[in-house]
Amino acid sequence: MMIVMREDATPEEVERILERLDNAGAKGHVSTGDVVTVIGVSGERDVIAGLPLEAYPGVDKVLPILRPYKLVSREFRNTPTIITVGGTSLGGGHIGLIAGPCSVESREQLLEAAHAAKAAGATMLRGGAFKPRTSPYAFQGLGVEGLEILAEAREATGLPVVTELMDPRHLDDVVKYSDVIQIGARNMQNFQLLSAVGEVDRPIVLKRGLAATIDELLMAAEYIVKEGNDKVILCERGIRTFETATRNTLDISAIPIIKQRSHLPVIVDPSHAAGKADLVEPLSLAALAAGADGLMIEMHPTPETALSDGAQSLDPAQFTRVAARLQAMIAWMGTTLG
Amino acid sequence: MMIVMREDATPEEVERILERLDNAGAKGHVSTGDVVTVIGVSGERDVIAGLPLEAYPGVDKVLPILRPYKLVSREFRNTPTIITVGGTSLGGGHIGLIAGPCSVESREQLLEAAHAAKAAGATMLRGGAFKPRTSPYAFQGLGVEGLEILAEAREATGLPVVTELMDPRHLDDVVKYSDVIQIGARNMQNFQLLSAVGEVDRPIVLKRGLAATIDELLMAAEYIVKEGNDKVILCERGIRTFETATRNTLDISAIPIIKQRSHLPVIVDPSHAAGKADLVEPLSLAALAAGADGLMIEMHPTPETALSDGAQSLDPAQFTRVAARLQAMIAWMGTTLG
Amino acid sequence: MMIVMREDATPEEVERILERLDNAGAKGHVSTGDVVTVIGVSGERDVIAGLPLEAYPGVDKVLPILRPYKLVSREFRNTPTIITVGGTSLGGGHIGLIAGPCSVESREQLLEAAHAAKAAGATMLRGGAFKPRTSPYAFQGLGVEGLEILAEAREATGLPVVTELMDPRHLDDVVKYSDVIQIGARNMQNFQLLSAVGEVDRPIVLKRGLAATIDELLMAAEYIVKEGNDKVILCERGIRTFETATRNTLDISAIPIIKQRSHLPVIVDPSHAAGKADLVEPLSLAALAAGADGLMIEMHPTPETALSDGAQSLDPAQFTRVAARLQAMIAWMGTTLG
Amino acid sequence: MMIVMREDATPEEVERILERLDNAGAKGHVSTGDVVTVIGVSGERDVIAGLPLEAYPGVDKVLPILRPYKLVSREFRNTPTIITVGGTSLGGGHIGLIAGPCSVESREQLLEAAHAAKAAGATMLRGGAFKPRTSPYAFQGLGVEGLEILAEAREATGLPVVTELMDPRHLDDVVKYSDVIQIGARNMQNFQLLSAVGEVDRPIVLKRGLAATIDELLMAAEYIVKEGNDKVILCERGIRTFETATRNTLDISAIPIIKQRSHLPVIVDPSHAAGKADLVEPLSLAALAAGADGLMIEMHPTPETALSDGAQSLDPAQFTRVAARLQAMIAWMGTTLG
Repeated sequence: MMIVMREDATPEEVERILERLDNAGAKGHVSTGDVVTVIGVSGERDVIAGLPLEAYPGVDKVLPILRPYKLVSREFRNTPTIITVGGTSLGGGHIGLIAGPCSVESREQLLEAAHAAKAAGATMLRGGAFKPRTSPYAFQGLGVEGLEILAEAREATGLPVVTELMDPRHLDDVVKYSDVIQIGARNMQNFQLLSAVGEVDRPIVLKRGLAATIDELLMAAEYIVKEGNDKVILCERGIRTFETATRNTLDISAIPIIKQRSHLPVIVDPSHAAGKADLVEPLSLAALAAGADGLMIEMHPTPETALSDGAQSLDPAQFTRVAARLQAMIAWMGTTLG
Repeated sequence: MMIVMREDATPEEVERILERLDNAGAKGHVSTGDVVTVIGVSGERDVIAGLPLEAYPGVDKVLPILRPYKLVSREFRNTPTIITVGGTSLGGGHIGLIAGPCSVESREQLLEAAHAAKAAGATMLRGGAFKPRTSPYAFQGLGVEGLEILAEAREATGLPVVTELMDPRHLDDVVKYSDVIQIGARNMQNFQLLSAVGEVDRPIVLKRGLAATIDELLMAAEYIVKEGNDKVILCERGIRTFETATRNTLDISAIPIIKQRSHLPVIVDPSHAAGKADLVEPLSLAALAAGADGLMIEMHPTPETALSDGAQSLDPAQFTRVAARLQAMIAWMGTTLG
Repeated sequence: MMIVMREDATPEEVERILERLDNAGAKGHVSTGDVVTVIGVSGERDVIAGLPLEAYPGVDKVLPILRPYKLVSREFRNTPTIITVGGTSLGGGHIGLIAGPCSVESREQLLEAAHAAKAAGATMLRGGAFKPRTSPYAFQGLGVEGLEILAEAREATGLPVVTELMDPRHLDDVVKYSDVIQIGARNMQNFQLLSAVGEVDRPIVLKRGLAATIDELLMAAEYIVKEGNDKVILCERGIRTFETATRNTLDISAIPIIKQRSHLPVIVDPSHAAGKADLVEPLSLAALAAGADGLMIEMHPTPETALSDGAQSLDPAQFTRVAARLQAMIAWMGTTLG
Repeated sequence: MMIVMREDATPEEVERILERLDNAGAKGHVSTGDVVTVIGVSGERDVIAGLPLEAYPGVDKVLPILRPYKLVSREFRNTPTIITVGGTSLGGGHIGLIAGPCSVESREQLLEAAHAAKAAGATMLRGGAFKPRTSPYAFQGLGVEGLEILAEAREATGLPVVTELMDPRHLDDVVKYSDVIQIGARNMQNFQLLSAVGEVDRPIVLKRGLAATIDELLMAAEYIVKEGNDKVILCERGIRTFETATRNTLDISAIPIIKQRSHLPVIVDPSHAAGKADLVEPLSLAALAAGADGLMIEMHPTPETALSDGAQSLDPAQFTRVAARLQAMIAWMGTTLG
């Protein structure tokens, strides 16, 4: 941390900050320039995080020097984390291909989707039993019944199941029936939920919030890892910008940035980013080319009748074509599927 | 809803959509222009919300005509909602002035803040017992002990107490000790939490998410009101933009827009919007001038030692000056405090 | 400027940077912390601006310490700049009220607008002769004929005239016929145009670009002042965000921030910010409450027939009402009109 | 265009709009729903563009149905435009690889860059003689001398030269010395400049503005094509968002969206998007995978001493490696270089 003083700051004001740092167990290093004085701060990360020094008289601004996360950082662990579940891997050169409908709507719908996903080469099955919907009048998911259907689809296909958790009160059920727990974009900073999934032995797919910076995404992952669960898969799914041609703006640069800063694997959800089925293929190819460790793609037996996200879902035939193209690129890149 | 077909859409594609609408209990009205065909849709709001017609072949785009919320709209109730709690009112010409520290840190700190708030004219006391923090290493709040201190401060000053709820598992405690429940910006679309507070008899302060549109804020309020609790106070606290001179960008236009669209009262939190104590006064005056029903201002006995948000907190002397200025404007506007 | 080295930076990499600084005439001060080394840089602003040190091996990031502008800063001149033109003033407690149509459409239209503006208390008349339009098929303005009409309206009412310059080739004409030159939002970083108007003796209204930070606006003003023209009026007119309820998001906080950083006056254009006539009054009041030095409001004799920006234009009766309310607030604030 | 009336609109208000449409030569089609009345409008694009019907009493909102551009649209021409210059092509399966320094700094620097670009496989050379710089104190380019150096580099290498035009007064010089004219992001809506380059016989690289939507980019291209010059290459170079980990956010989805809407080729500038040299390779690969027709990459003989954009420039060795990887992908995609 670097504290930049105002031009008119007094020596007493500088002194007062040094005392505060000292009391907190941190240390200040004063550099006096031609125009302003700057105080460098060294000490423990958590001590520094608790020092709101902007409020001191004479302070102009406080600039962070070190990144605020630790356990998820490249500095902490320099080899890529590989997540293995149900015989398939993701990370470190293993590309995951997660497919399935937005919502579990019925036994027939999900089983059809699951078989189509499996046949096309998907390595995991996705499907929502609890659905966060902008409108209280929209379909909210089948709940536990949806979880049971997901478990049945896993039995039928062997694909590990990824499903969203929205409420800590549903944690036991979600752990019981599924293999990977998804934290949705709207809950990326639901810190109680993050801490709760940090205590279970399940891989977590953590989606980036609509307005979250990459560092905030990594801080959210830190919440999970800090509780003991280091199996976190980060997911870029588009951020909110002024552009309305797509539902969200896929931040493709997030992939290489995350790889520089963290050892955790990162996947891309092109379906939510684009909001349109015909953009899924180019965005998926781009994601792999940029170094993503996997993709999460919405696929529905009949997108026209989907109770949610129909416009961005591929049908099984489309998914099969896209999956073949992705597998060709995975081979060209020198990586492996699953 | 208005469905715009592609230029090359076939009559069969139009027909297929009309059938789907008919099956769902809605009705389509076809207008054939020189270039494209447009289908107007009429029917129940919740039926239409469940129709993902973008996925149909031949569809170019789907344009909403009506706003997606009902119970919170001006069309549903054309008189402003007034929230009364502990003898003070907010809405319909009654201006609320909510003040207090970001976090409850100790009994002494909160009681000093509470007495200062009361003396300066505040109508409610704020203070967080459960704190959402970006870093897992930062102070997370005192929990139930903080709630008990808040209740004591209410006894001592008579000020109703506003505190944040982050987890449905804490609902009973928060209801037991406080008067008004705050849903923070990060939880604006935590739909389980919204439904939970929709079932209790407490006013709710619902803060706008960092990347939430005004209509999404109103949809979140609809979640609460739909469960039976229509005492919702909306709170504009800044949105996330590219500008870094302030912590967030206060969307001052949200005040008159919300008043046009909804009967619910709207307040402004200038402290979180600005992130800097010296912007609180001009932004508070601007909010009142634009028609806000109240303000929520962070005030701490000693901002320099605050465990959270020190940089944006006023000290008691500063708050007293600002409050006096705000009261002068409230009088000039022809409204009343509390 | 503060150079933060990577954790694995070598002493040679640090040395190489110190040499570069030395060669450029700047000076580096090394601080070695527990984790990283930081180099503080002191020297002339323009020297430092030309040093792209991020490209050096071993550098993690470069943090600016000082603001990049000089002549427009509070540090350079601590008294507010007052712009006086045609007997009316703006800045330092003098509030300007600039009104008129988006475009000059005809002699009759402009004269009617000018007389209505004058009667309601406006201190300057606005009107565009050269119009930047998103579509090449939309009305592009009357050109020099429009300038002549503006000059006639000044004769008739005594109001100084503000008009937009889009092309350096039109500078002589605009200087000949008008009193104040406006640089539009889309041209805020048209540096050739900025330099050109820096060489004439006319006040400049410089509008903030849709995606420009406050510091970039001040840098654009520095381009003008650097050429010798220090009569610059900054204009906040809304920035582009994800919110679509308004045409742009009025950044009300920009007013106090600019006042902290610069001696130049700042006005607000609520018409372009909102894009809707019924928001002009609350946003104008908010702007004054936040400390703005003036307002620029679109008014048209018959908004329904306007060739541009009809939706956000007040008609004369509406403007008269709003102007009366603004004058009441100007008095309450202890400032004066013009 | 679709006009949505307010719920309380009167039949007279509807009638008045129909009259206005009729007078303007457009036609209105009324649909009366259960809640609101909607008026569909048909007629000529330019007539409709000039009708600000939001200003009419009783109007709630106006929704566009058709896209506002014509000449650049897929509907106007359904085959991809291929731009050929100096024996190399771009578009329609021909991938352009444009490389060179941000600014021309000296004869030696540029010639070295040009030879390195040529050797690595670049198809065009870039270099700025007129530089738009945020700070008036930063290097502004060599002007005409820079253009002469660029022409010499073309002679030496055979590579066509791309350079930026900032001011219509420099048009003749830029046309004289260069092959392709670049319009920078800050000038995307400098409409006078767009019209000026629409009248010359040179391909134009039109960069997307920092806050411009894809449709606004296409409207800017329409300005050029409307004047007779249909050789426009669109360039995605990142948009401004809240994320600060990269200089801008590369909108990778813009590539397939532009291809759906327009016949013009689209290239990507990963250097300005990322602001960091080490992101250039993954973003370039992603751009090609998403369907881009080319790349514009900053390369400098010695990035550390660059007078502008050093941090994002590759050195010749890095560029050679990246170019080889890009050529491998171009072959894999079934496209050709140049």
